[in-house]
Order: sequence, then structure tokens, then C-alpha cells
Amino acid sequence: MVKNSFSHLCCPVARSMDVVGEWWSMLVLRDLMLAGGIVRFDQFVEHLGISRNVLTERLKRLEAEAIITKQPVQEGGRRMEYKLTRKGWELMPIMIGFAQWFDRWRPDPERSPLRFVDRQQGEPIQQLQVMSADGRRLGPADILPISED
Amino acid sequence: MVKNSFSHLCCPVARSMDVVGEWWSMLVLRDLMLAGGIVRFDQFVEHLGISRNVLTERLKRLEAEAIITKQPVQEGGRRMEYKLTRKGWELMPIMIGFAQWFDRWRPDPERSPLRFVDRQQGEPIQQLQVMSADGRRLGPADILPISED
Repeated sequence: MVKNSFSHLCCPVARSMDVVGEWWSMLVLRDLMLAGGIVRFDQFVEHLGISRNVLTERLKRLEAEAIITKQPVQEGGRRMEYKLTRKGWELMPIMIGFAQWFDRWRPDPERSPLRFVDRQQGEPIQQLQVMSADGRRLGPADILPISED
Repeated sequence: MVKNSFSHLCCPVARSMDVVGEWWSMLVLRDLMLAGGIVRFDQFVEHLGISRNVLTERLKRLEAEAIITKQPVQEGGRRMEYKLTRKGWELMPIMIGFAQWFDRWRPDPERSPLRFVDRQQGEPIQQLQVMSADGRRLGPADILPISED
């Protein structure tokens, strides 16, 4: 039976938030996705201005959730670097969604928005949007959350 | 000049996080977007199990950022309800992105994922994805952040 189930619905949003919905965790992921080369503990400390204790805790949590992995920079070496797993990379649309949303409503309209371009064509990417199976843009009123449990 | 500017890039993600990247704020927004009728202070308290002090602070912040507005339930009445502004509704793709991401990687595969369907056709919506201007699906390696400042 198809029904609107909010008790079911609660979970994936709330539980995603529980995993990555924390300021520092999102900024660590942002660095790994977009900063191009910030991959080591000391680099995060320097770039984010985060305390070593907090960073240690956040990295452990992200590793435990299989969003990032840790490996030696050189085989057998002691210096470690962090990489996003596929699960981690799949948060990229959300990261871009936040950037686009902020820039669309940015308090300082004089400032140019950040743009993301498609490397192949050099053209700006589309705004992130919810699409129907047949390719129509859907607004909030067009979308129904359902559960089949 | 077109350049890859991470210092510029930092801002929209970090500042979005600063505005809405807090567990309770996201859950308040989730309730307003998806719960269908949870709009008053006492309803948030009951549904989220959030303390009144924390809720007051989060609602004030969301109002100050023009993500929600407060208005009387009945004209001239004292009971207030909260509504999303257009700026607030534009966070819906991100909320759906989190739900889809969590369900795609859910720890309990026995459980049915939450689905979102298009009300008009009754079909599941597409997975949220980054698209090029000409409609190709873009992966992380295809996307370059640039600034024209």
C-alpha cells in the first residue's frame, strides 16, 4: 500500500544530518571535494582553523561511516592522507546545492557568484533541481514522499 | 580572468552551513517542507523533542535569515505559525538529496527506501544530480569551480 509516511520519512534526513550535518564535517568534505590537494591532517588544521581534537573526532566519525578512507601517502610510509569513498563523493550534488543556494540569495549582490563549469564545454552547470522521471522540473508542491512498507 | 578560486569558493558552502547547517535547524526545515501541517512552536517541540530554548533560538535565526516567516494563524490572533519563504523552499532539493543519499547507502537494506514521487504522474522522481547546460550528467571530475572576480 502506498501511503504518505512521515515517520518513515524522518529517518533518512535526520540520519543524514546525524552523519554529516555538522559544520566541521561538511567543511572537511568540502575541502576534499573542491580544494584540490587538501588531504592531510595538518592541511585541514591549517586551512580550516579547526582544533586538532575536534578534527580527530570528525575524521574518525567520517571514516566509521565509510564516507572517507585513510591511507599512507607512500606505501609503507607513516604520513597518512584522506580520500573520499564513492559514498562520500555522492554528497557532491548537495555541496554544490548549498553553494548555489547561498549565491542565489547572497547578501552582497555586488560580488560575483561562484560558478561551477563543466570542464568539457566550459559552460556553467545547471542549477540543481528536482526532476520527474520524464524530465520536468518539479517544485515542492509537485513532490509527494511515500513509503511502501 | 577565469581562475579556480578556492578562497572565494569557501564562502558559499561555509556560509550556508553557518545558516542552516545545524541539526535542529535542518529538522525544523524538514518538518516545514515535508511533514504537512507541523507549523507551530508547540508542534515542533512535540514532534522533534527539542527544548523550547533551543527551538526559540533556531527559529529566530531562520527568521533573521529570511528562510522562514512568522504570522498569526488567524488575522489579529495571538497564535503564530511559521512558513517557509521562497528562499527556504529553495532548500528542498538539498533536503531530498540528503534523503536519497542516506537511502542509497542505508545500513539496513531490508528496509524499503523512502521514495519521492511526482504527484502528476505518480512516478519516482530522478536521483538528484549535477547536470551540464546541455543535459549531460556530471561527475565530480567533470566539474570546475571558478570565480570571475
